[in-house]
Order: sequence, then C-alpha cells, then structure tokens
Amino acid sequence: MPKLILIRHGQSQWNLENRFTGWWDVDVTEKGAAEAKAAGALMKEKGIHPAIGFTSVQTRAIKTMNIALEEMGMLWLPVTKNWQLNERHYGGLTGLDKQQTRDKHGDEQVHIWRRSFDVPPPPMEEGSPFEMANDPRYAGIKVPRAESLKDTIERVLPYWESAIVPELKAGKDVLISAHGNSLRALVKHLSGISDEDITGLEIPTGQPIVYDMAGDLAPGERYYLADS
Amino acid sequence: MPKLILIRHGQSQWNLENRFTGWWDVDVTEKGAAEAKAAGALMKEKGIHPAIGFTSVQTRAIKTMNIALEEMGMLWLPVTKNWQLNERHYGGLTGLDKQQTRDKHGDEQVHIWRRSFDVPPPPMEEGSPFEMANDPRYAGIKVPRAESLKDTIERVLPYWESAIVPELKAGKDVLISAHGNSLRALVKHLSGISDEDITGLEIPTGQPIVYDMAGDLAPGERYYLADS
Repeated sequence: MPKLILIRHGQSQWNLENRFTGWWDVDVTEKGAAEAKAAGALMKEKGIHPAIGFTSVQTRAIKTMNIALEEMGMLWLPVTKNWQLNERHYGGLTGLDKQQTRDKHGDEQVHIWRRSFDVPPPPMEEGSPFEMANDPRYAGIKVPRAESLKDTIERVLPYWESAIVPELKAGKDVLISAHGNSLRALVKHLSGISDEDITGLEIPTGQPIVYDMAGDLAPGERYYLADS
Repeated sequence: MPKLILIRHGQSQWNLENRFTGWWDVDVTEKGAAEAKAAGALMKEKGIHPAIGFTSVQTRAIKTMNIALEEMGMLWLPVTKNWQLNERHYGGLTGLDKQQTRDKHGDEQVHIWRRSFDVPPPPMEEGSPFEMANDPRYAGIKVPRAESLKDTIERVLPYWESAIVPELKAGKDVLISAHGNSLRALVKHLSGISDEDITGLEIPTGQPIVYDMAGDLAPGERYYLADS
C-alpha cells in the first residue's frame, strides 16, 4: 500500500511580509527552514521512507525538500523538479502587500481573487519587476500571466497523472514538496472536494499530509502525519 | 561548445580527521560548506549556466552541489544522483586514521593501497560498522567490498558514456559534483592520463575544473575556472 506524503513549504519571506508571491522565487525564512527540519524529523520518527520525491522549480519548495531529506538522512533520494508543481501564478498581484491590496481594491475584490475557483487575478503587466518569463528555468515554457485555482489544477493534474501516478502504481512511496495551491489541486482531486469548498481549505506549512493509497490507487482518508 | 564543469566536494568531517572514507557517508564540515559556497559564487561570477547536474548518492557531494546551486540562484537545476559517481570504496581501510594505518602497516603498504592503480585495499570485513550494503540507497546494487582506482574507473566510465555524454552531445553544459577518485576516473579518460600518472593527480576540493568540449566531444584542455 504505497504512501503519498505532501508537504507545503515552510514559511517564506513573503509569507512573513504578507505579500502575494506566486511564481516569484522567494526563499524560506529561518522559521520556514526550521519547519522543514521539523517535518524531516517527524517523517524519520514515523518511519517514512519515500522512494522518490517531486517538487516545483521554486526555491522555497526545493529547500523544504532538501532540508527535510537531510534531516531524514535521505539526501540521496531521487528528486524530480517540475514547474507544473509551482504555486498558482498571482499575476498583477505579485509582490503586493495583501493589506494594501485590500485597501486599494476593497476586501470583497481581494477575497474573490484569493478565494474564487475560476477567477484569475489581473494579468501581470509587461515589464513587471516580478516577471519570470525570461528566467532560464522556464525556457520553452509558456509562463502564464495569471492563474485561477482552476488554471493551476489544469496544469498540476496532467503532471500528477503522467509522472507521479506511475511511481505509486509501481508501489513506491512518494514525497511531494510544493505550494498551497498546487497541493490544493492534488487534495481536491484525491479527496473529491468541490470547487466551492477547495478554495477555503487551508494547507498548513511544514505539516506532512499522508494518503495511504489502496492497490487500485483509490486514496484513503488523508491525515496529518503528526496525528498518526 | 558545451562546457563540462567538475567539482570535488568541499572538506568532509573525515578529510579533517584524516580517516579513510570511501563509501561511508560523512557530511561536509563548515569549511567544506564554505568551499562549496565559494565555488557557487565563482561559477556565478564567471557566467557558468549548467543545464543539468550529476552527483553521487553521498551526502558530501550532494550538499556541495546544493550549496553551490543555491549560491548561483539555480536550485531548480535538474540533478541526477547515481552511485556510479561515488568515491572509491576503501574496503577494510574505511574509518581508519591514515597515520595509524601507516604505523600499523608501514608507509610503503599504505602508499600502495592509496596510490597503486589496480591494487585494491583489503576487503571490508563482514559486520563492519562502516558497512553500507544494506542501506536503502543501494537497494539492488552489488556494493563492492573494496575498490582499486581501476575498479572505480570501470563503474564511472559506463555511467559517463550512457548518462552524461548524451547531455553534452545535446549541447548542454554539465555540472558534476563528485569525489577525488570518481573525478580522477573522468580526468584520466578526458585528458588521456596514464595509469601511472593518474594516481598522483591531486584534485583540490571545491575548485571548479572546466573542459570546453569540441563539437565531436573531443575535450579541450582542462583548466581551473578560477584561472579563466
């Protein structure tokens, strides 16, 4: 019965500063690094032994993976990095302080951008200082101008199906280090959560979430590793 | 003209303690981490942009890779980890202090074990505390009991040919973080160094070595990136 373990990256600099981050590549804070280390210690204590790892191409998720693996004595784990596991692209909101954005656009509009299923935020402007389209890690990839949660799901799930499901089918335990919204995409799919409910589901940072997958890959209940 | 960049891991705890290490999985020291960071800063300054990375399954080489990539802002680089890039297996010498070993076996014998091309050290004993054969990273791999430099070359080069050469042929710059003897294997092959001379070639820790590969993948001269 293979296990799937999901971790949302530890606190990032812009989580701390309360700014919309999306595809901008901020680092984890000291607290975030400590969260990653604690997640690794917990996985070690609970006897979690993934056979393969997946992460995004964003520093905060990669470092969370690396710090946790080091704590587990498993830095040797094969890890694949793919942009399809990136955070939702916050478009023109990227870099903005969330409170300032509420002051400017009103609570209701910001709530819609943050919590609606299929309304993307305004697109990133040309020449934005937070533009990532020319970064070499995205060579050959059409970097979005903004994404709704629905858009995010539509690029996470094909990667899930093509790259991750075959590893689970081969009986391997899989560890994924990713982001609030790319993990929402997976949890929605695996736990059958509605479009309405998924946007309100909070995924805490640095808390390993586990699914025990049945032979036919029907996921069982999800639970926090800390509670097992 | 693709570049090949080789880095030997920064100082490890057992480099510092002057003990034979081989496949035992020691960490880098603070100095070793600083060497890795300096290597990353140098690569960034010199405009090195690898498209893919390779390393062993040993913590000291993986951390050297990760620390250097972080300094380059390139943690997103795809990195493949393979045991065939591991350090030479020092067999029964693993864990021994080099001076104590000389005192016990004599300078000449230790010199032969360390510096002969095809004489392996005595095999690791059954039940050695430094046994790695049952470590999950070596599942399905016949872990050697001891290796000569020749033995090391005989498992490094097939991996070079099958996994690394195709990336260079595709025009990609390749970064390898590995070990004194797995890098000797590559340098011997690429620079056409004799069996006699290769055992005396010292590869310094944390110093990126570069080959500019011609179109037919004939390697040019090797040089230290710091000197370019």
